[in-house]
Amino acid sequence: MYLASDNAAPAAEEVLQALARANAGASAPYGRDEPTRRVEAMFSELFGREVGVFLVTTGTAANALALAQITPPWGAAIGHAEAHVMHDECGAPEFFTAGAKIVGVPGLDGRMTADGLKALLARDFWTPPTHVAPAAVTISQATEAGTLYRPAEISAIADVAKAHGLRVHMDGARFANAAAATGAAPAELTWRSGVEILSFGFTKNGAMAAEAVIVFAEDLVKNLAERRKRGGHLWSKGRFIAAQVEALLENGLWLDLAARANATAGRLAAGLESRGLRLAFPVEANEVFVWLPPSADDALRAAGAAFYAWSSESIAPERSGRVGDRLARLICSFATPDDDIAAFLAVIDRERVA
Amino acid sequence: MYLASDNAAPAAEEVLQALARANAGASAPYGRDEPTRRVEAMFSELFGREVGVFLVTTGTAANALALAQITPPWGAAIGHAEAHVMHDECGAPEFFTAGAKIVGVPGLDGRMTADGLKALLARDFWTPPTHVAPAAVTISQATEAGTLYRPAEISAIADVAKAHGLRVHMDGARFANAAAATGAAPAELTWRSGVEILSFGFTKNGAMAAEAVIVFAEDLVKNLAERRKRGGHLWSKGRFIAAQVEALLENGLWLDLAARANATAGRLAAGLESRGLRLAFPVEANEVFVWLPPSADDALRAAGAAFYAWSSESIAPERSGRVGDRLARLICSFATPDDDIAAFLAVIDRERVA
Amino acid sequence: MYLASDNAAPAAEEVLQALARANAGASAPYGRDEPTRRVEAMFSELFGREVGVFLVTTGTAANALALAQITPPWGAAIGHAEAHVMHDECGAPEFFTAGAKIVGVPGLDGRMTADGLKALLARDFWTPPTHVAPAAVTISQATEAGTLYRPAEISAIADVAKAHGLRVHMDGARFANAAAATGAAPAELTWRSGVEILSFGFTKNGAMAAEAVIVFAEDLVKNLAERRKRGGHLWSKGRFIAAQVEALLENGLWLDLAARANATAGRLAAGLESRGLRLAFPVEANEVFVWLPPSADDALRAAGAAFYAWSSESIAPERSGRVGDRLARLICSFATPDDDIAAFLAVIDRERVA
Amino acid sequence: MYLASDNAAPAAEEVLQALARANAGASAPYGRDEPTRRVEAMFSELFGREVGVFLVTTGTAANALALAQITPPWGAAIGHAEAHVMHDECGAPEFFTAGAKIVGVPGLDGRMTADGLKALLARDFWTPPTHVAPAAVTISQATEAGTLYRPAEISAIADVAKAHGLRVHMDGARFANAAAATGAAPAELTWRSGVEILSFGFTKNGAMAAEAVIVFAEDLVKNLAERRKRGGHLWSKGRFIAAQVEALLENGLWLDLAARANATAGRLAAGLESRGLRLAFPVEANEVFVWLPPSADDALRAAGAAFYAWSSESIAPERSGRVGDRLARLICSFATPDDDIAAFLAVIDRERVA
Repeated sequence: MYLASDNAAPAAEEVLQALARANAGASAPYGRDEPTRRVEAMFSELFGREVGVFLVTTGTAANALALAQITPPWGAAIGHAEAHVMHDECGAPEFFTAGAKIVGVPGLDGRMTADGLKALLARDFWTPPTHVAPAAVTISQATEAGTLYRPAEISAIADVAKAHGLRVHMDGARFANAAAATGAAPAELTWRSGVEILSFGFTKNGAMAAEAVIVFAEDLVKNLAERRKRGGHLWSKGRFIAAQVEALLENGLWLDLAARANATAGRLAAGLESRGLRLAFPVEANEVFVWLPPSADDALRAAGAAFYAWSSESIAPERSGRVGDRLARLICSFATPDDDIAAFLAVIDRERVA
Repeated sequence: MYLASDNAAPAAEEVLQALARANAGASAPYGRDEPTRRVEAMFSELFGREVGVFLVTTGTAANALALAQITPPWGAAIGHAEAHVMHDECGAPEFFTAGAKIVGVPGLDGRMTADGLKALLARDFWTPPTHVAPAAVTISQATEAGTLYRPAEISAIADVAKAHGLRVHMDGARFANAAAATGAAPAELTWRSGVEILSFGFTKNGAMAAEAVIVFAEDLVKNLAERRKRGGHLWSKGRFIAAQVEALLENGLWLDLAARANATAGRLAAGLESRGLRLAFPVEANEVFVWLPPSADDALRAAGAAFYAWSSESIAPERSGRVGDRLARLICSFATPDDDIAAFLAVIDRERVA
Repeated sequence: MYLASDNAAPAAEEVLQALARANAGASAPYGRDEPTRRVEAMFSELFGREVGVFLVTTGTAANALALAQITPPWGAAIGHAEAHVMHDECGAPEFFTAGAKIVGVPGLDGRMTADGLKALLARDFWTPPTHVAPAAVTISQATEAGTLYRPAEISAIADVAKAHGLRVHMDGARFANAAAATGAAPAELTWRSGVEILSFGFTKNGAMAAEAVIVFAEDLVKNLAERRKRGGHLWSKGRFIAAQVEALLENGLWLDLAARANATAGRLAAGLESRGLRLAFPVEANEVFVWLPPSADDALRAAGAAFYAWSSESIAPERSGRVGDRLARLICSFATPDDDIAAFLAVIDRERVA
Repeated sequence: MYLASDNAAPAAEEVLQALARANAGASAPYGRDEPTRRVEAMFSELFGREVGVFLVTTGTAANALALAQITPPWGAAIGHAEAHVMHDECGAPEFFTAGAKIVGVPGLDGRMTADGLKALLARDFWTPPTHVAPAAVTISQATEAGTLYRPAEISAIADVAKAHGLRVHMDGARFANAAAATGAAPAELTWRSGVEILSFGFTKNGAMAAEAVIVFAEDLVKNLAERRKRGGHLWSKGRFIAAQVEALLENGLWLDLAARANATAGRLAAGLESRGLRLAFPVEANEVFVWLPPSADDALRAAGAAFYAWSSESIAPERSGRVGDRLARLICSFATPDDDIAAFLAVIDRERVA
């Protein structure tokens, strides 16, 4: 019953096999290898246009590099107040940007809105050179609340951004889950809706460690290679990142795995709700936030379930917990066994009877 | 005939197998996994003392993190004038140190000497706060010239360093080659000789991508975890770095592979010398620097040999080339086929006859 | 009627005279001059203990240097959500700290409270190395709302800080106004209440450009000289900063000038209130925040009054404006002519009659 | 006999008077004042074209800001190996550029040559993203050796720079001395010869503390205001920097003062040579580097003369000292009394007789 994070999952078998296949003979280093070439072409095909591709191995690196491309040291990158880039990367965006500000805007269900962004930009502390200049917007897809942005919502945010001269980044650590859940084309979820640079995550979705910075806006390719090298993120044996990504992109494996994770989360959520438990956020991808009575929480942990206690200021009033309830975050991966879900719900059943 | 770098080698089979073994079920993320625990213990045993272990996946990251631990922004890290950290990491040390200076000291055969270091430290531009303060020494083992430091040489440098309050780093991207070639114990090559923090490379020696920052000086552990996270170098699925390292440390595989690379280089060097070609540096590990007549250089490239043209100001006068000669760097890895060496020499033979 | 800021004031006559006196013959550069020596002694006497003194010429430099001494790149400095260091220094603290986070805590009347700080520190995103570590607290004295902290309030905040291992900074850009208004001894307002490093501002209070970073905690002296030099803030002709400070410290001129500014603000506030206008914050030093009906605002501006339109989320409900009212910030300096206050109030009188 | 540096001089009387004149009533802060406006116009007139003007108060700040405008973090700024920006600013250029490299090129008499630059650029470690990219050239006028660049030399260097895509900075901490000595028009010494951004120093030449970053290349104005603010170098009471500069620009006072310093140095040099002492560099501006026999050195110091012992690898063989000689750096300012020169030479006379 490991539901603490999808990053605890193993790699997909196909990924391991691809690594083995790639492990033959000498290969030009530093991304000049064949698998990297192929992956670049696959991304361009996937997105229906030429894109820049920069492979790295952590989401933190992908986000920090992407944000550094669009946020000068005296600029601000604006995201949802509870976004991963705000809190969970130990200041990596500040490091890679050489000291920019990462500014949060509140919003229900973990989602920033175009109106919220507009309101923030209308505030009066953006006068250079006294203040930092708003430079970038970063949209988490899926959000830290496990919710999604539809293309129209992304467009609305990007329109506000563009009207103010801001560049648009998407933190797609769980982009696959979003794509699988919405059924929207990758192009619709990104560049057609105004996204200019994307952190496309594979690690949580079946890779060992692979993330791609995908660049849609041509001018944002410049010097990204230098930033990556300087950050220590250019692998010499680049084929071993590319092989992972290739395996996942092939035949839509990435979407299959994400759909599986989403479906498992959906079953878990349904099971919880049918047992009278309240969900703090709509379950739209592979994350479930549920209010647990202390006794259920305790019983689950006693039974060995692993999950995080959570807190959020982004919960809609009608979804708030009862007094004493504890908020739990449950994340399903492509590899979460159905048995774990059943066992998890069984603990709750037992606890309610008791 | 790929002799451009050992980083073009594949991974060792044992490493691939270890990845497959590690790929089972959920595992605590961010280095809290079992393989990482085991690897930490293995390093402590290998070095004969408690050490701090921080796994990353590039040598640039390992060096930059290590140097940042020992060089404040207003400090200088001193290394050989042609060291990798000086030139080949796109300023990663400057980035991770927040703008320290990396200062070169010349020395024959790619080696810094205790006297050279002493002379540099005696120069008159180290008066704070006008000047940056010398803070660290970084020793490349093996050097960019493929030469080695013996324990006594390391001690001599470290003694000068300590007398001036400098901390001592070793860039061991090819530490395995040095250990295999000298037969010296890892402890002798490091902490017993005054090294306080080590970048221990595995990537060039059979890993897919794995490097360990090994910390001997207890006070240098502090905040290294934060630096690694902030640099985007903390893998969520940490077991997959650890598994690589474990496979290489087990039963001394790392030494076997390095010895194989060294031996291949030795055969190549002998073959070149026996054909009347001059070596620019003594061949002590897995790198061969040879002066090629233009015709030989051209013939080799025409035959498909891959290697770098080189230049160095560190060559002993008696080892300089003849007028017109071109300096070539040839690196052998554990996976360099004997046939490649034979083919390489055969081209030279054919060219001499012609 | 220039009430936009006290930084628009000229320098005090005594300061100009001191500069002229200091302008005689050669003098050792870089702070090794006599006036600097004397000023150091004066500060130690003023604070009743040995202190470290680092003169610079802008409040931004003083704050950024001080915060960099106490906040590592992976740390957070916590201050009031509307503090100057948060918004008005173009990211200077982020720059000098090499990318730390500056985190805001809300609080009424521009003041952080010990409880607010405690609540923030109890939040769940301070787990290293995922999150940045809270490292410092910065207290603005006077606040951006023109309000003050009494020694007991400072102590309460510092106690929370210390219990959590945080260092304590005071941004005293208007420290003189606070000292004059409270009558508290400088020692009471700082180190006796737990402040470890202080930005002591003179520029707004009669200097041309002079600020002192005063260090109470001995360990915080280390490397501040290097930071200042590296930031370009070490003057060669240091006597000309020192002379300004000396003139202001002599015979308590700094307190006299601040008291004059405070008194002028007090008269202005009383005049506004007696005319039925509501103040948004208690007037405790030299700043007045008043709700103006649009017609009054327009009339004042038409009459040539210079002041900033303001906004704040820190206003107590009972002090909020009437619908349509505009919030104005009025700052008095030691040099604000009484006639300006009279003229300002006269415009309001005329406008009310009309 | 204070000859240690021209930065030990007082301010010119005219500067003090200008400060007093500027000290009247309220003035818009942050460089929006009248004196700043006037100074901007004066610079445009002086250089015979529109220029961007950014006033600061230290040469270190001016240089670091200018270099940051033209050198990205993954770039290199190239200057003479003994230039001030290399060694004497505690890494300020590295700080403001966020970790660029400052690379030295050797050259006789403290001067970089076009050929030296070309040779450096032809070296083989400039391949991105492995290596940092050469981005900027910085020319010190006058050099650390007190020598000058003529317009043709500047043009030659700038031509090489431009051919390689490098931007051109001039560190004009002693630009006035160079202009006075060469008689060349400021335009000839800068933009007409390819200089794109200039640190124009006034502090050593009669100001209290005033330096101007002068921007000739229009695209280099962008974000310089933000860099200055963020570095803590934007004065609120900007009129007090501007007033200094205005006083010096008015009626060519800056040239008169510099000419006086140069003439004094010329007399000193002639006196030394006529006494059989050898100069290490040609005396072209206000600095004299002389080889002193130890007895003369000791006698001068005993007599209270203040000057620096020096060393340089840039001395022409025919100008090297006799065995045992000590190299002394003597700098004259506009305020160096003739009596000091006479007294200095008298000590030498006495010592020779003895």
